[in-house]
Amino acid sequence: MTEHSIDGIPISTIDDVIRQIAEEKRIQLNNPSIREVNIIGNQLHNRLPSLLIIGMDMGIPGLPTPQFIVDAQRASLTPEACAQYTPFDGLPVIKQATSQVVEHLFGLYVNPDYCIPTVGGMHACHEAIGLLGRMNPQRSRLLFLTPGFSVNIAQAVKFGVEYDTLDPDRLYGCDLVNAIERKIEKNNIAGIVWSSPSNPTWRVLSAEELKGIGKLCTQHDVIAIEDNAYLGLDSRRDPQNLLDSVAQHTEYFMLIFSGSKIFNYAGERIGVAVMSEKVAMLTGEGIVKYYRKERFLDAFVQGGVYTTVASVPQSPQRALAAAFNAVATDSFDYFEYDKPYREKAKAVRDVLLKHGFTMPYAKDDLGPIGYGYYFTAAHPAFDDGAKLAMAMLRCGMTAVPLVGFGGNHNEGVRLCTATLTPEQLAKLEPRVQVFSEMYQKK
Amino acid sequence: MTEHSIDGIPISTIDDVIRQIAEEKRIQLNNPSIREVNIIGNQLHNRLPSLLIIGMDMGIPGLPTPQFIVDAQRASLTPEACAQYTPFDGLPVIKQATSQVVEHLFGLYVNPDYCIPTVGGMHACHEAIGLLGRMNPQRSRLLFLTPGFSVNIAQAVKFGVEYDTLDPDRLYGCDLVNAIERKIEKNNIAGIVWSSPSNPTWRVLSAEELKGIGKLCTQHDVIAIEDNAYLGLDSRRDPQNLLDSVAQHTEYFMLIFSGSKIFNYAGERIGVAVMSEKVAMLTGEGIVKYYRKERFLDAFVQGGVYTTVASVPQSPQRALAAAFNAVATDSFDYFEYDKPYREKAKAVRDVLLKHGFTMPYAKDDLGPIGYGYYFTAAHPAFDDGAKLAMAMLRCGMTAVPLVGFGGNHNEGVRLCTATLTPEQLAKLEPRVQVFSEMYQKK
Repeated sequence: MTEHSIDGIPISTIDDVIRQIAEEKRIQLNNPSIREVNIIGNQLHNRLPSLLIIGMDMGIPGLPTPQFIVDAQRASLTPEACAQYTPFDGLPVIKQATSQVVEHLFGLYVNPDYCIPTVGGMHACHEAIGLLGRMNPQRSRLLFLTPGFSVNIAQAVKFGVEYDTLDPDRLYGCDLVNAIERKIEKNNIAGIVWSSPSNPTWRVLSAEELKGIGKLCTQHDVIAIEDNAYLGLDSRRDPQNLLDSVAQHTEYFMLIFSGSKIFNYAGERIGVAVMSEKVAMLTGEGIVKYYRKERFLDAFVQGGVYTTVASVPQSPQRALAAAFNAVATDSFDYFEYDKPYREKAKAVRDVLLKHGFTMPYAKDDLGPIGYGYYFTAAHPAFDDGAKLAMAMLRCGMTAVPLVGFGGNHNEGVRLCTATLTPEQLAKLEPRVQVFSEMYQKK
Repeated sequence: MTEHSIDGIPISTIDDVIRQIAEEKRIQLNNPSIREVNIIGNQLHNRLPSLLIIGMDMGIPGLPTPQFIVDAQRASLTPEACAQYTPFDGLPVIKQATSQVVEHLFGLYVNPDYCIPTVGGMHACHEAIGLLGRMNPQRSRLLFLTPGFSVNIAQAVKFGVEYDTLDPDRLYGCDLVNAIERKIEKNNIAGIVWSSPSNPTWRVLSAEELKGIGKLCTQHDVIAIEDNAYLGLDSRRDPQNLLDSVAQHTEYFMLIFSGSKIFNYAGERIGVAVMSEKVAMLTGEGIVKYYRKERFLDAFVQGGVYTTVASVPQSPQRALAAAFNAVATDSFDYFEYDKPYREKAKAVRDVLLKHGFTMPYAKDDLGPIGYGYYFTAAHPAFDDGAKLAMAMLRCGMTAVPLVGFGGNHNEGVRLCTATLTPEQLAKLEPRVQVFSEMYQKK
């Protein structure tokens, strides 16, 4: 039997180099972290320069920031503006623009006073989780829908906030709502955190599910934290329709937006937290204890945004305002601009499924999972996503084991195809074929 | 007796308007917060447009950002760069530049690996305080030299970190060192936090004091957090000499730098935390518990910077790198650029002292307090800085009561003269005269 090779390099050579890297960097090859997969991938390319790695581990933009957003940021860089702090609760221009884009996309009015810019969506989550998880000693837990963005759990841990997780896999519609109700009926849950579409599964919560969750939030005084990092970037979306949000069904909401993915503007770090008046006015003994404020809004702004970064950088606020205004007036179609993500996700997923891969998270309440930024994959030869990721690395492809995302399907990996070039896409199928031949018998 | 007036407006009219504002905004006039003083000042001008308020409450730049820094930021705004996250621990260019500027200003080598950019100095303090205060359950307190930047205490409270304060007033040289030793000899203090020059007193710690504090830190395993927000912006400094730092005397240090004040670059929010290798490698059970990391450096970068903001905005990193490089190569003299701050502080302080004001914090180990960004003032007619601030407001001048800064001299106020215009400066003395006549008999 001839030995398989990738880019002319025998797999055994790649194996040797991976072992060397692991030894030098003290990486346990049977259980690598996300970061370690990335380190091995980078080092592999450094040491075997003719090996082109097909990098699908990092969740990073593969498109440039639209020029008009960069131009808007540039225009706001004056010596006078760069010198001055902005208001703790943000520049009026971004507060207004957020309210307008929410109205445009969701058909929902939110008060600009309650639209608070942050240093990316991450920052909004950090402050929301630390505040919500500690504001009421009787409700000291958060519920995360998992698998989910693992940093949200790290944020809870950082603030000493306890948490439950719920993997909604195979729970759709009222089954999902019932499962959430069982989690929150003890009345010790302060909030539910999710993103939709989800990182890593790309599950989208349906209008029916959001309605049920919203109703539960209202009934049980639980705050929904809906992370809209990937705001409707799903191939199944009809751009003519309004987007669904829990905020259409309850006043107990905080919505988080980010320029990083939808506008490919991750480098300048800008996002916005939007809360209802109900949430803004919440009180709790932990708000006084940890933030020395009476109301949730003041704690979030002065105890949250202000104590972390003093104020949010001024030029990205103005640039994101320009982006939101362009969306709200239909003069920029970010869904169309980001189409390559959906196309690449389809191309890669089709190849994987054709050659024996499966999708551990294959469906949601809307049907088969759509195409977008992420998807999950597994392979019958592996019951451990870390081992699968390592096996893919041997064939020059990187992916992230699902175990770090806190869900139940740890046999799989997450793939992000956003940065793949035509050259990488062309090399994908031959490699997947090699992979498939190497692992079919196991 | 003729009634006094300011800008042609009788004081009794101003009083009426202040009372109206306080009633509408529900402000207790006998104990206004910093924010409330600012609100009253702004509202006063809105309602009495001919009244020019001499605003000395806010600590904000009054000079524009140097053009070359703005240009450097602009140059880094490309659609490609704006799209991408930067490394969690910062772009190499700013890490290198920080090491070089520290070498240039302090004659001290710090490893670029341990220079971590943050979203302003505030962000560095936030993460340092949350981490240091919780890393070791046996050392669960921080010691703040006060009066100091009140947000540092708010940051400790936010993370549930307990703290002691020490007002070094009238303690100079070894007396200060001895007083600190008495505070830390119980071995329950994890770190000491100060800024030098100090906000609000403008006290500068002398080389002798820093040497003594450094020695204590080494002996007692206590980390010094030295906030260099105002990096040598003191009129007594000889720019030919190296700056003093605790880092010259101990390995137990973290230095915090910020572009906001020295480069008048507050609007784009960029700073750097610099730690010694000793600090980078620290371990502690709280590091594992709250940050799920082993070492201080990893907790600061991945549990700190990453979980708050994902990565630091890329363009201000490159701009601050350009600024630091310019300083390190003597092609930009920020001390000279910022000279107007020292001149304005001198002009205002001279007028106040001439008309009966005093300085509650008048000296440090180097002699009479120099001129820079802030100074403190009191008046014999007042034993409460809040009342003094309200009385100054009646005469069209804003200042911040010292009580919020956590020190002992709460009869005084803090003044920042950075934004005063020639018109405001020209109006100052007549107003101070009015004030002095109104309050001399009390």
